[in-house]
Amino acid sequence: MSLLSQTVSAIRPACQRAVDEADARQARLTKPPGSMGQLEDLGAQLAGIARTCPPPVPLRPAVAVFAADHGVHAQGVTPWPQEVTAQMVANFAAGGAVVNALARQVGASVTVVDVGVASDLPDAPNLLQRKVAHGTRDLAVGPAMTREQARQALETGITVAGDLVEAGADLLVTGDMGIANTTASAALIAALTRGEPAEVTGRGTGIDDVTLQRKTAVVQRALARLDRSEPLTVLAEVGGLEHAALAGYLLGAAARRVPVVLDGVIAVSAALVASALCPAAADYWVAGHVSVEPGARAALDHLGMEPLLDLHLRLGEGSGAVLAVPLVQSAARLLSEVATFDSAGVSGT
Amino acid sequence: MSLLSQTVSAIRPACQRAVDEADARQARLTKPPGSMGQLEDLGAQLAGIARTCPPPVPLRPAVAVFAADHGVHAQGVTPWPQEVTAQMVANFAAGGAVVNALARQVGASVTVVDVGVASDLPDAPNLLQRKVAHGTRDLAVGPAMTREQARQALETGITVAGDLVEAGADLLVTGDMGIANTTASAALIAALTRGEPAEVTGRGTGIDDVTLQRKTAVVQRALARLDRSEPLTVLAEVGGLEHAALAGYLLGAAARRVPVVLDGVIAVSAALVASALCPAAADYWVAGHVSVEPGARAALDHLGMEPLLDLHLRLGEGSGAVLAVPLVQSAARLLSEVATFDSAGVSGT
Repeated sequence: MSLLSQTVSAIRPACQRAVDEADARQARLTKPPGSMGQLEDLGAQLAGIARTCPPPVPLRPAVAVFAADHGVHAQGVTPWPQEVTAQMVANFAAGGAVVNALARQVGASVTVVDVGVASDLPDAPNLLQRKVAHGTRDLAVGPAMTREQARQALETGITVAGDLVEAGADLLVTGDMGIANTTASAALIAALTRGEPAEVTGRGTGIDDVTLQRKTAVVQRALARLDRSEPLTVLAEVGGLEHAALAGYLLGAAARRVPVVLDGVIAVSAALVASALCPAAADYWVAGHVSVEPGARAALDHLGMEPLLDLHLRLGEGSGAVLAVPLVQSAARLLSEVATFDSAGVSGT
Repeated sequence: MSLLSQTVSAIRPACQRAVDEADARQARLTKPPGSMGQLEDLGAQLAGIARTCPPPVPLRPAVAVFAADHGVHAQGVTPWPQEVTAQMVANFAAGGAVVNALARQVGASVTVVDVGVASDLPDAPNLLQRKVAHGTRDLAVGPAMTREQARQALETGITVAGDLVEAGADLLVTGDMGIANTTASAALIAALTRGEPAEVTGRGTGIDDVTLQRKTAVVQRALARLDRSEPLTVLAEVGGLEHAALAGYLLGAAARRVPVVLDGVIAVSAALVASALCPAAADYWVAGHVSVEPGARAALDHLGMEPLLDLHLRLGEGSGAVLAVPLVQSAARLLSEVATFDSAGVSGT
């Protein structure tokens, strides 16, 4: 049996008994019922994931930034040169990128995984060389990957999640880097939510109207040829190697029963793939934020997830997800540390 | 000259040169321009407050929870017994409340200040006994406080802010506790934003329709008799002692040039008072979140502030503001720690 099949069959839904216990406990804590809003739901979710209430407070978050290039760059869907992917990997490795600064703020480790950068990269201490291909092919004119490449990248993501958990991580965070990857994300989201390309394709890093029209047309053309019956086919046809790896990472975390915080549009498009492969895995995912990219909201709605943050971010790298880490920790902390009405001698209504 | 007048005259607007420098720096950092959304504006605000770019990362946050009781409790505006204010102060002192758990998550100190709890409270290590009165009078039938009491509570807040800053705090956080205090907040907001009582009065901790009607009618009656020409009169007539202290705390922080994170509806109604007393002080305030209480949004709109979080919270205590502390720290950190395109050798567009 392949690692992918093994992983999918190891995934169990979260524990409803622990969720119910958390809901009951929230009602006894010294605060008006429901007054902590979304953090109460999140606390219950964490209890369900941990299969116990109160859930442990996750104190060892780890970000994996999956990096890859995209053949569709040739279509002129972005003003950024393709070399920026490799340059940013060097920036991550040196600790100089936004995700590094934000990770230091929350005490998260950052691991960069090359699953498909176009150029060969020099070794670096926090860089895993797991290149599946030197970038994808152009999804505008044919399949971006073979099914075998997609599977290999998925399994790379599964392995990275497993290794981080083995090393002690108790909260995984998604990160991504890949010039032109919002085009692949839009195609995945349109395909998997049955959304209109024009409604889920956005300005990415901030493109102009002409480029947006070109990008939308590329997504429309790709969708027109697409056989949507199998998620692995959709992924291979229009996804990116980092999308595939992220989908595997999300499945690997669920199999290990570790929560994952999703970043923006790249992560949520990968989550659609992972959820299509194994719906129960979504029990383990938390939407860190909603990107301004329109496909992000469409994907979250399809997944039935409410984001924690809405700060008008559109960077990627894992930035929005890392910012949400203290909220996840806080939600767990409330269940373990807040006194009950009885224990604190506080009167109820 | 009174401490209040001295404080108001010490407040200077934030430094526009540092704001501009921050904006220029954001554009050179290795990320698409504007891609960190609201955190870029926040970083620039912090630079303006610190009068230098990059601004220091605030690492010593301090929460002050101002507690007081309300004569309007007699009108049946809440199902919670008045004793809960004192019981919750004991809970804060023992470290068992939501704000304590959240403060531990972000490494913030918690100081509780009794500015007007109805009963006398036993001493506790983190409790400041600064009682101005044993609760306010009933704002439904007459002035809640004398102008002298309002001034005394304001000056208490100024002193608390100053003392926390002297002790090393570099980021202040507002907290509040007072059964029935959303009624006073709604009255302040209606008075100072010229809003309709029915539109700014909400369910507070979660009251039923009949209680909401009663509460709205109380706010309407109070507004009908109100002379709105002077902010100190409005505060004394319909505010609470914790609102007055919070307004002072906000002015005190601005005078010390230290940023303050605002919590929910109690804090933002106090901010309306403080801003009416000294508009420039608002340069130093950050809206931590928007409460579900409708007056909160009205007050933030009036102040021209965009909240960082919207998690459907309605607790108070400072909970939403404490949750936003890592976002404030992150915004400052980006400006000091992220590499520039030049320094990292990353190509621009």
